[in-house]
Amino acid sequence: MKFSDLVNKLDQKYKHSLINYPNYNPEIIGITPIENTQANTISYIEGVKFAKYLRETQANALILPEDETLQKQALDKGIAWICAPEPRLLFAEVIKVFYTPFKPKPLIHPKAVINPGAKIGQNVYIGPNVVIETGVKIGPNSCIFANVVIYPQVEIGANTTLHANCTIHERTIIGDNCVIHSGAVIGSEGFGFVPTSQGWLKMEQSGRTILEDGVEVGCNSTIDRPALGETRIKRHTKLDNLVHIGHNCQIGENCAFAAQTGLAGGVKVGNGVLLGGQVGVANNAEIGDGAIATAQTGINNKVGAGEIVSSSPSVPHKLYLKASIIYKKLPEMYETLKQIQKQLKEK
Amino acid sequence: MKFSDLVNKLDQKYKHSLINYPNYNPEIIGITPIENTQANTISYIEGVKFAKYLRETQANALILPEDETLQKQALDKGIAWICAPEPRLLFAEVIKVFYTPFKPKPLIHPKAVINPGAKIGQNVYIGPNVVIETGVKIGPNSCIFANVVIYPQVEIGANTTLHANCTIHERTIIGDNCVIHSGAVIGSEGFGFVPTSQGWLKMEQSGRTILEDGVEVGCNSTIDRPALGETRIKRHTKLDNLVHIGHNCQIGENCAFAAQTGLAGGVKVGNGVLLGGQVGVANNAEIGDGAIATAQTGINNKVGAGEIVSSSPSVPHKLYLKASIIYKKLPEMYETLKQIQKQLKEK
Amino acid sequence: MKFSDLVNKLDQKYKHSLINYPNYNPEIIGITPIENTQANTISYIEGVKFAKYLRETQANALILPEDETLQKQALDKGIAWICAPEPRLLFAEVIKVFYTPFKPKPLIHPKAVINPGAKIGQNVYIGPNVVIETGVKIGPNSCIFANVVIYPQVEIGANTTLHANCTIHERTIIGDNCVIHSGAVIGSEGFGFVPTSQGWLKMEQSGRTILEDGVEVGCNSTIDRPALGETRIKRHTKLDNLVHIGHNCQIGENCAFAAQTGLAGGVKVGNGVLLGGQVGVANNAEIGDGAIATAQTGINNKVGAGEIVSSSPSVPHKLYLKASIIYKKLPEMYETLKQIQKQLKEK
Repeated sequence: MKFSDLVNKLDQKYKHSLINYPNYNPEIIGITPIENTQANTISYIEGVKFAKYLRETQANALILPEDETLQKQALDKGIAWICAPEPRLLFAEVIKVFYTPFKPKPLIHPKAVINPGAKIGQNVYIGPNVVIETGVKIGPNSCIFANVVIYPQVEIGANTTLHANCTIHERTIIGDNCVIHSGAVIGSEGFGFVPTSQGWLKMEQSGRTILEDGVEVGCNSTIDRPALGETRIKRHTKLDNLVHIGHNCQIGENCAFAAQTGLAGGVKVGNGVLLGGQVGVANNAEIGDGAIATAQTGINNKVGAGEIVSSSPSVPHKLYLKASIIYKKLPEMYETLKQIQKQLKEK
Repeated sequence: MKFSDLVNKLDQKYKHSLINYPNYNPEIIGITPIENTQANTISYIEGVKFAKYLRETQANALILPEDETLQKQALDKGIAWICAPEPRLLFAEVIKVFYTPFKPKPLIHPKAVINPGAKIGQNVYIGPNVVIETGVKIGPNSCIFANVVIYPQVEIGANTTLHANCTIHERTIIGDNCVIHSGAVIGSEGFGFVPTSQGWLKMEQSGRTILEDGVEVGCNSTIDRPALGETRIKRHTKLDNLVHIGHNCQIGENCAFAAQTGLAGGVKVGNGVLLGGQVGVANNAEIGDGAIATAQTGINNKVGAGEIVSSSPSVPHKLYLKASIIYKKLPEMYETLKQIQKQLKEK
Repeated sequence: MKFSDLVNKLDQKYKHSLINYPNYNPEIIGITPIENTQANTISYIEGVKFAKYLRETQANALILPEDETLQKQALDKGIAWICAPEPRLLFAEVIKVFYTPFKPKPLIHPKAVINPGAKIGQNVYIGPNVVIETGVKIGPNSCIFANVVIYPQVEIGANTTLHANCTIHERTIIGDNCVIHSGAVIGSEGFGFVPTSQGWLKMEQSGRTILEDGVEVGCNSTIDRPALGETRIKRHTKLDNLVHIGHNCQIGENCAFAAQTGLAGGVKVGNGVLLGGQVGVANNAEIGDGAIATAQTGINNKVGAGEIVSSSPSVPHKLYLKASIIYKKLPEMYETLKQIQKQLKEK
C-alpha cells in the first residue's frame, strides 16, 4: 500500500504529519526493525539513542518521536515519516496494520474430552486433547488451545484465551478478555504445610483463585489457591513468564510483574504496582498503590504507596543507588579505617 | 450442623472447650476467612495480630489460640469458640469437616494411551490423554490426571497423585503417598555439558531420580537425573512451585523448600532443612540437619546443622540483620570517613 | 566385558594406560558412582578431592586424572585404571559404552493430530496426542514426544528432539540437533505492554524466535518472541531448566546459562558467555564474548568481553570477593567509626 493509505488506517491524530509532505509517499509492504531494515518498509526510531540507524536505513518510511532534528534528517534522506508524542503507541498501531495474530475459528475439536456437565458458550474454539471436567463454564468467543486441562467447577469468561498445555484447577474463576499463556497453572493447591511433632500436616486448600477481567498470566507461571477464601488478581494486571503468586495474595488493578518474580502467601498489593524481574515478596507483606520495586528486590515488610525500592532487603531506590556505589569502595574504606585507627593509637 | 456436632467430629482433645459454654451452640454451615466472615460460619483467629477482626465479625464461632482475653471478648460478643495450643492444626481439622478435595473415582479413561508392557495397580485413576510407556509400574489407589506423560521404566507407588500435564522421565522412582503438582518435570536429563576445544560435549545422563514416600513437588518444578547414580529426595520433603533440583542432589527427610528456590548439581541437604523462596545453592554445597536459609539467600559452600543463614553469599542470620541495617548507612559512613581523614590531615 | 575390551571401545588416545598393566584386566559389567561403587564395575575419581573413596571402593577399575599418586594407590589396591588429561571426557565416553538413551523408533502415532498442511520428514517419531498445526515443517530423524503442541508455520530441523508437554509457538524456527526439554515454551508472546492513560496497551508480537543448530533448552524454560524482528539463540548454546529469555534477545554461540536465570528484553550476549544460576539481566544490557557472571548476579548495563562479574548490581568478581568479606565486618566498622568520631571530638 502507499504510505498515505497506511496513515489513513491509523488514528486521526497522526494524519497531520503526512499532509505536510505530500511528495513523500512510498510504497510500503511491511514493517522492519530499525537494526535490520528493508526497502519498501516502515521502521521505528524510539528516540535519539537510535538515531545512528537513520543514516544507513533501507526503510522508506519511519515512525519518529517529536524531534525536529530527526525529522529533518529523515526528509533530507528522502524518507517519509510520521510522528507522535508517544511513538511506541503509534508503533503498536502500525504493527496491527500488517500483522493479524493467529486465532483459530470457532470449533469444538472432536478429540477434545468435554464432560457433559460443562457449559460451553457460543463461538468458542476448543482444541484437540483439551480436557474439560464437570461443572465448567466457558463464555462466548473464548479460545482454549490444544492440551489444556480444566478441573471441575472452573468458570471462564468471554473472549478469553488459554494457550496450549496450561492447567486450570478446581473452582478457579477467570474473567473476560484474559490471556493465560502456555504451561501456566492457575488455582493449584497453596503450599500449606503445618509443622507438627509428627512431621508436616497438609492443610487442605479449600479456597479458590480469581482472575478478574483483562488479566494476563505468562508462560509456566503458577498461581495458587488458599486454604480458605481467595487468591485474587484484579482487573488488567499483567504477569510475565515464570511468575509465582502464593495462596491468599490480593493483587490490585493494572499492575505489571516481570519474569521470575515470586510472591509468598497472603501478600497485599495495591493498584498500578510495578515489580521488576526476580523480585521476591515475603509472607503477608504489603505494597501500596503505584509502588515500584526494581529487579531482584526482596520485600519483607511494607512498601508505601508511590515508593520506589531496590535491594534485598528493600531500601529506598535513591539510597540503594548511593549505597551500591559505596559497596564497591568497601575494601578501600576498610583499609582507611584501619589506618586511621593506627594513626590515632600512635599519637 | 450444630457447633457441638462440629466439635464432636474433631479430635477428642478439643472437646473440653465447648463443655464449658453449653449455651453457645450456633448452627454452623461452613468456614469463612476472618477478613471476610459470614453468618453461621466458623472462622479462625491465628493470634492477637488478628484480634481487630473479632470486633466486627459476622461469624458465630471462632477457632482461637489459648488466649484468655480473646476468649472473653468472643464470649462477650456471643460468639462460640474452640481453642488449641496449636490453633493452625485445629483450623486444618475444621477445614476437613467442610471440604472434600476433588478426587476422581478409579477409571482407566479410554483416551489414555497405555503401553501393554505397563503394570497398573488396583483402583487407579488414569485420565484422558495420559501417555504411559513400556515397563512403567503404578501402585494401587494412585491417581494420574489428564495429559500426564510417563516415560519408560518409571515406578510409581501406592496412593500417589500426579496432577495434569506433568512429565515423568525414564527410570524415575516415586514412592507412596506422593503428590506431583501440575506441570512438574521429574527425572529429566541433568545439565551435563563438558567444555572441550570442540565446544560442549554432552554427558549422557544414565542415572535416575528417586522420590521417597510422602514427597510433594510443586507446579512446574523440575528435578533432574544425574549422569550416574541418583538424585534422591527423602521421605516427606515438600517442594513448592517452580523449584529446581539439579542432578545428583541428595535431599534429606522432612525438608521444605519455598517457591523458585534452586539447587545446582550434587548438593547434599540434611533432614528438616527449610529454604525460603528464591534461595540459590551452588554445586556440591552441603547443608546440615535443621538449617534454615531465609528468602533469596545464596549458599555456595557449607551451612552447619541448625544454622540460620541469609544474604548472598550466605552469612549467619544475626549478622545479616545487623549488616543490612548498616548497609543503609553506607553513604553516611563514607562521608564521615572522608571528614575524619580531612580533619586528621589538617592537624 | 573384560576391561581391555572396554578400553578398546574408547578413543585411541586412552589405550596406552592399559598396555602398561596387562595383568589388571577385570570383568566389568557397568559403571557406578564413586560414593557407592559395586564389584565388577568401573568408577570415576574426578580429582584428589575424591581420593578418600579410593581406599574402600568395591570397583575393579577406575577412571583417574593424570595423578601418579592416585594411580599408584589404585595399583597397590589391585584396581585397574585408565587416565586422561581431561578425565570428565573419558567418563562421558565410558558412560556411552554402558548406556543407550531412550529414543523411540520412527512412527507417526495414530493419536497424533497433524494438520494436512504440515510437512513431516523421513524417519520421524511423533508421539500420541502431539498436535501439529498448519504450515509446520519437521526435518528428518526428529523426535516429537507425547503431548507436544506446535502452533502454525513452525520449522524444525533434522535430528531434533522435543520432549513431552512442550509448546512451540507460531513462526518459530528450530535448527538441527536441538533438544527442547519437557514443558519448555518457545516463541510465546513477548511481555509487550505500553502504559497509556487508559491502562496497558498490548503490543502485538509479530516477530519470531529462532534457535540455531545444536541449541538445548531446559525443562519449563520460556523464550519469547518480539513485537518485530527476532529473538535469536545461536549455535550450540545450552540453557538449563526454568530459564527465561525475553523478546528480542540476541544470544551468541556456545553459551551456557544455568537454571532460573532470566534475561529481560533486547539483551545482547556474545559468544561463549557463562551465566550462573538465578542471574538476572536487565532490558537492553550487553554482555561481551567469554564473559562470566556467577550465580545470582544482577546485570543492568554492560559487561565487557572476558570480564567476570558478581553481585547485584554486578561488580568485578575480584572486588566482590573482597567486598563480601568486608560486608561481614560492617557492624564492627560502624562501631569503630563511631568511637573514632567520639575520640576526635573529645580532643
